[in-house]
Amino acid sequence: MQSGKRIVIAGAGLVGSLLAIYLVRRGYDVTVLERRGDMRREQGGGGRSINLALSDRGLLALQRVGLADAIRDISIPMHGRRLHQPDGSIAFQPYGKEGQFINSVSRATLNMKLMDLAEAAGASFLFNQPCSSVDWKHNILVSKQGAAEVHYPFDVLFGADGAFSATRLQHQVHHSRFDYHQFYIDCGYKELTIPPTADGNFAMDPNALHIWPRKNYMLIALPNLDRTFTCTLFFPFEGAHSFARLTTSSAVKEFFEETFPDAVPLMPGYEEEFFKNPTSSLVTVKCYPWIRGGSFSLIGDAAHAIVPFFGQGMNCGFEDCRILDELMDAYPDSWERVFENFQQLRKPDADAIADLAVANFEEMRDKTANPQFLLQKKIEARLHARHPDKWIPAYSQVTFSPHIRYSEALRRGAMQETIMQDIMKMPGIENNWESDAVEQVILSKLEANPL
Amino acid sequence: MQSGKRIVIAGAGLVGSLLAIYLVRRGYDVTVLERRGDMRREQGGGGRSINLALSDRGLLALQRVGLADAIRDISIPMHGRRLHQPDGSIAFQPYGKEGQFINSVSRATLNMKLMDLAEAAGASFLFNQPCSSVDWKHNILVSKQGAAEVHYPFDVLFGADGAFSATRLQHQVHHSRFDYHQFYIDCGYKELTIPPTADGNFAMDPNALHIWPRKNYMLIALPNLDRTFTCTLFFPFEGAHSFARLTTSSAVKEFFEETFPDAVPLMPGYEEEFFKNPTSSLVTVKCYPWIRGGSFSLIGDAAHAIVPFFGQGMNCGFEDCRILDELMDAYPDSWERVFENFQQLRKPDADAIADLAVANFEEMRDKTANPQFLLQKKIEARLHARHPDKWIPAYSQVTFSPHIRYSEALRRGAMQETIMQDIMKMPGIENNWESDAVEQVILSKLEANPL
Repeated sequence: MQSGKRIVIAGAGLVGSLLAIYLVRRGYDVTVLERRGDMRREQGGGGRSINLALSDRGLLALQRVGLADAIRDISIPMHGRRLHQPDGSIAFQPYGKEGQFINSVSRATLNMKLMDLAEAAGASFLFNQPCSSVDWKHNILVSKQGAAEVHYPFDVLFGADGAFSATRLQHQVHHSRFDYHQFYIDCGYKELTIPPTADGNFAMDPNALHIWPRKNYMLIALPNLDRTFTCTLFFPFEGAHSFARLTTSSAVKEFFEETFPDAVPLMPGYEEEFFKNPTSSLVTVKCYPWIRGGSFSLIGDAAHAIVPFFGQGMNCGFEDCRILDELMDAYPDSWERVFENFQQLRKPDADAIADLAVANFEEMRDKTANPQFLLQKKIEARLHARHPDKWIPAYSQVTFSPHIRYSEALRRGAMQETIMQDIMKMPGIENNWESDAVEQVILSKLEANPL
Repeated sequence: MQSGKRIVIAGAGLVGSLLAIYLVRRGYDVTVLERRGDMRREQGGGGRSINLALSDRGLLALQRVGLADAIRDISIPMHGRRLHQPDGSIAFQPYGKEGQFINSVSRATLNMKLMDLAEAAGASFLFNQPCSSVDWKHNILVSKQGAAEVHYPFDVLFGADGAFSATRLQHQVHHSRFDYHQFYIDCGYKELTIPPTADGNFAMDPNALHIWPRKNYMLIALPNLDRTFTCTLFFPFEGAHSFARLTTSSAVKEFFEETFPDAVPLMPGYEEEFFKNPTSSLVTVKCYPWIRGGSFSLIGDAAHAIVPFFGQGMNCGFEDCRILDELMDAYPDSWERVFENFQQLRKPDADAIADLAVANFEEMRDKTANPQFLLQKKIEARLHARHPDKWIPAYSQVTFSPHIRYSEALRRGAMQETIMQDIMKMPGIENNWESDAVEQVILSKLEANPL
């Protein structure tokens, strides 16, 4: 048991709710302050949630507090990418080895479940409590509500309030030197829906993440428990094909029918949704430091917002909770040492997954339409099956190998990619990729660059 | 003459004042709003001004409005670095070719001079006018002064209000996607003084920039017209040798006497100054976009704050004014096109000089103490003298070649550095560096990597 007992968590999102469960189980007095209303009782904004892909890092963090099974129950396994190619063909690219998969889960469903579990464990959730300011001298979070001010004293405050964190802003403005980086990619996104078929079934294979790769943009679809698919169009804000150009129904219709001919019949409401749903932007946030002595730490998106293309935003935030918990075991007497170690350990990993996530956009929207790329992935998968100790594809390191740090996955992945670039240039690789000769070349190159 | 006539410039610093001169000469109605008082009439804060090194880019911009001679009159030429080595020896490293030099000038003196010139040309300067908010819909800058609000309508607003720009903040908070990066280096700085000798002379060679390179920190000194030197200690905030450790007079004394034995006798007041003067931090700011249609542009530090180690902060800001002026010639009818081109042209150059400036800290504080480095610079200088069309040292590209863009200097400099790394590994280079053979090796490497 750490010394400070009164813990305030700003933000009742996925990470704030899971963190509350972790801390309540250790006997802390935990209050979660959420600036929005209670999503379990009110209709949310909606129309801007990319479905989540829960994978091994997230599951490991849930498992540590006994929740993995409960969450698996509300998830749908996705074993690979189902690629709807521009020529009308469909390819399948498995995510990992036989039996490895990621899990499609609705953000709202998962969030509500975690809030319920945290409350049942003993955490207090208070809603409509924005963080208006923080008195860092006396450790009080101030929430303005109209003319009134509510004061929340704390021993320890966690900023789990997302990419546009209000606690981070309070931390920043009262900090003499604060490194801050926010970067928007050129694409935004818009949510669309594929409803169930007339006879109530999934309109496509539900055990895959569907991608329509189209060079500098893409459509994706993830399955939901109600047999709908949540689709997301990732699309440039400006340019020849862009949100800026699709301003009329006829422009939208023409674009979709030409670009996604096999998806259009499955999305009867897409034109209406296109104009009704907001166009959202995608930001990366890096900052430093995350902590203030033993009394404050950022966590999750508030510390390291990333783009969604590696499906790791939530997984990374959940992993934050697990690492923090391990550090509380290691340094039971000092929040200061817990936070120092947390920051030192997690900052390079958060930076790495941020960069990997941006890079994966190119892979998803463009490379997955390239037969050479798919061949490369097949070669790597074969190597992984035959030499699992020597070669783990970058995607698998991030997704299925929670014991490999993100920063390590970035380093190893780059090294492997260099090797594979050479391999793909070998004459006749299309035909002899399963040969012993090719395998030997890769292994000898690996030996020159050991993991 | 562009269409919008009423121009407001936020910030009466170096760039705001020079910009006012440029614009008044084109017939615009120019109002400069400064949040501080008039430094010509009030005592400034002082104790935190790094002296400026005016070089060819700044001079070219001054020349374009006929001011180069007036400013040269208040400057002191510095022909190279005078290096006070740890072993007590003194080395001299010329900045460029015979006759090339940079100019030490006091920030305050130069700023007051530019304000006087801008007022004489017809610009209005108003002081104690902070930018509190900007109404971007109606183009009004609002300045709150106590309970009162003063409104400044504008056709065009320039944000020349420095690294912590208030107009940039207004631009950012009313912008849906704004890339923003701020980064502090681990070192801060503190100003100290070397007064004239008892008989009223400079205490050291006034025509050099003095450096005491000490690995991860350094002391520098630049001459002033009053025969003082303004010294600046660039020093880590934390660590074994750091501001955090120098908290007592005895610690300061011990450190200075051991580290800068030849400087201590010249700085009789250093102990007092060390505790009286503030410890300031060094920030890099990158952001995008700089502009809003044809009605707003950031300029100077507000668009691209950089660390001072290449002596280019002011020079880059002055160059902004020159480039902007050239674009006003090219697009006389549209501020929108002027600003679009300004941003497109200057953003990569600003990013490049920001990175070059950070890199130059290492060169100044560490490499200048290394005989190998000084030899490398001698080889490059010789090559430049013999083949001025083929080889321009990176420092000279930035400092003495205003026709080479910063982004180009970064690219060329990196290529040259790669070549020189190879050359410095040649056996016996210490003895045969002036040989034809070495020159031929460099030239042939250059041919493989043409400028």
